[in-house]
Amino acid sequence: MQIEEIKLKDLNPKAFIDEKIKEIDSTVADGLAINALSGGVDSSAVTMIGHKALGDRLKTYFIENGLMREGEPDQVTSLFHDLGVAVELEDAKDAFFGALRGLEDPEAKREAITQTFYSGVFGRIVRDSGARHLLQGTNYTDVEETVAGVKRQHNVLEQLGIDTEEQFGYKVIEPIIQLRKDGVRAVAKALGLPEEVYDRMPFPGPALAARVQGEVTPENIEIVRKATKIVEEELADTGAFQYLAILHRDRVTGVRNGERDYGLQIEIRCWDSVDATTGSPTKIPSDILYHTLGDRITSEIPGVVSVVYSITKKPPSTIEAI
Amino acid sequence: MQIEEIKLKDLNPKAFIDEKIKEIDSTVADGLAINALSGGVDSSAVTMIGHKALGDRLKTYFIENGLMREGEPDQVTSLFHDLGVAVELEDAKDAFFGALRGLEDPEAKREAITQTFYSGVFGRIVRDSGARHLLQGTNYTDVEETVAGVKRQHNVLEQLGIDTEEQFGYKVIEPIIQLRKDGVRAVAKALGLPEEVYDRMPFPGPALAARVQGEVTPENIEIVRKATKIVEEELADTGAFQYLAILHRDRVTGVRNGERDYGLQIEIRCWDSVDATTGSPTKIPSDILYHTLGDRITSEIPGVVSVVYSITKKPPSTIEAI
Repeated sequence: MQIEEIKLKDLNPKAFIDEKIKEIDSTVADGLAINALSGGVDSSAVTMIGHKALGDRLKTYFIENGLMREGEPDQVTSLFHDLGVAVELEDAKDAFFGALRGLEDPEAKREAITQTFYSGVFGRIVRDSGARHLLQGTNYTDVEETVAGVKRQHNVLEQLGIDTEEQFGYKVIEPIIQLRKDGVRAVAKALGLPEEVYDRMPFPGPALAARVQGEVTPENIEIVRKATKIVEEELADTGAFQYLAILHRDRVTGVRNGERDYGLQIEIRCWDSVDATTGSPTKIPSDILYHTLGDRITSEIPGVVSVVYSITKKPPSTIEAI
Repeated sequence: MQIEEIKLKDLNPKAFIDEKIKEIDSTVADGLAINALSGGVDSSAVTMIGHKALGDRLKTYFIENGLMREGEPDQVTSLFHDLGVAVELEDAKDAFFGALRGLEDPEAKREAITQTFYSGVFGRIVRDSGARHLLQGTNYTDVEETVAGVKRQHNVLEQLGIDTEEQFGYKVIEPIIQLRKDGVRAVAKALGLPEEVYDRMPFPGPALAARVQGEVTPENIEIVRKATKIVEEELADTGAFQYLAILHRDRVTGVRNGERDYGLQIEIRCWDSVDATTGSPTKIPSDILYHTLGDRITSEIPGVVSVVYSITKKPPSTIEAI
């Protein structure tokens, strides 16, 4: 299938949305469709388009994988509830942490999350739902990167384990597959989604698991979740492209109650960037850089004795560490 | 033995030196004494006192353990040569790297270095020398910390494996054992040592091995040696108490020639401190912090894709990471 890109300058968001609504409505007809919402701009836009097209004929699920930021599952579901979209929250924390147990290799961790989502949790929900159509937030960059082999995107069809429409009786609908991120953001805005969604800071597919070096456990995720909350609170005003906290695997010496002891180290990255292709470390106000970040993270998160700030450009660094 | 501290305010450096010269001269008499010089202020002061007392009756060795900073062995030996003190350079790199092979635990690494120095390399030199006296740079803080069990100092007598004078025929002379660091610095200055010695930045006993997380290999030491040189060049003007580079064990993703690849991460620490009891991260000029350090380290050291700066206070951090 040849997919034709629609560039932002050629996009009329309202007309695009109306066209997709009609297409989806006539494709699904009186059947049932299903989709997974993560809270990212892609899946949020697809959820809204699907909702406008199908109403109760669309079942939307939020998979709680235990790897999201603090309060995120509730925030996402209640935001959509307020927009009139019912979202089912599926608690799958045990499945994800079980799959991640003992894994240290970054690729193995990523694969475990993908498999747990598609072959495990969401795959079962799709099969049990009786839905004949699956709505996916695949965008043009996902297709390009997967074709080029640069990155394996989560949301490409084959990874669902649902190979063909004939085999399983599902048809996959990808309403935003012709758009890049900037186009998706314009569509999300036109759909009436709030700024916190259409202008949302990038967040990796494997969520906080991408911010833990070494084994991903509920305890490690809780540490990096607390650090993420502090970093997001303290760096929101910088207007940076993206900011994040990483839990290192290596231990460093620290002092607790006058005793020498090994402790944890948190790395903070904060990026000035237009589209994540290149980036520079954000100049952070002195008080926040030299006092607030280190003081808050070491005092509010038990076991953390060291905080460092990334001062490398991309390239040769990347935005995320894992 | 009860050792009586001489506080800086009660110290007359010239009179102290004259007294020690007389004591050492009469103790060694027409015998031979030996000592190891690292280039630190303690061993430098002891070397000069010993030289003034004994002249050719003192044999001074610099043990090249392969763990020193770039050019350091040559700098130290030629500095003392210019002061009229002959220093023998003993190449013991293979012994140290052999002892460190496969060790990842910080305590095990420290122990391997101590044992290689005292029981191995320098122990053998002492035994072969025919010297009846050994000059050591033990200071008052070393004694205090060893007694308190806070830290195990390298230069305490028992660790030599030379338990008593009777057993081996050596007597240990510790000329600066009543002084703390500030007193030693005053004595070193009065001895005519240059500022780069008497005001030398603190440097750990295990040298660059204390700056490598995980296994210490010649390759890892070379990486952290290059990073140390860059950090010392770029941060000298800050006037900070101490600055250092650490090679992390964890790998992070990076981009090289457009390809995603795992690479090395260097941590920089730069401390404002009076006496290392407490410390704060130094405010580094913006250009150096956000550009020069990261750019130089990632471009001049192959394999390094990420540089971070420590923004934690001591406590709960410590000055060094290992």
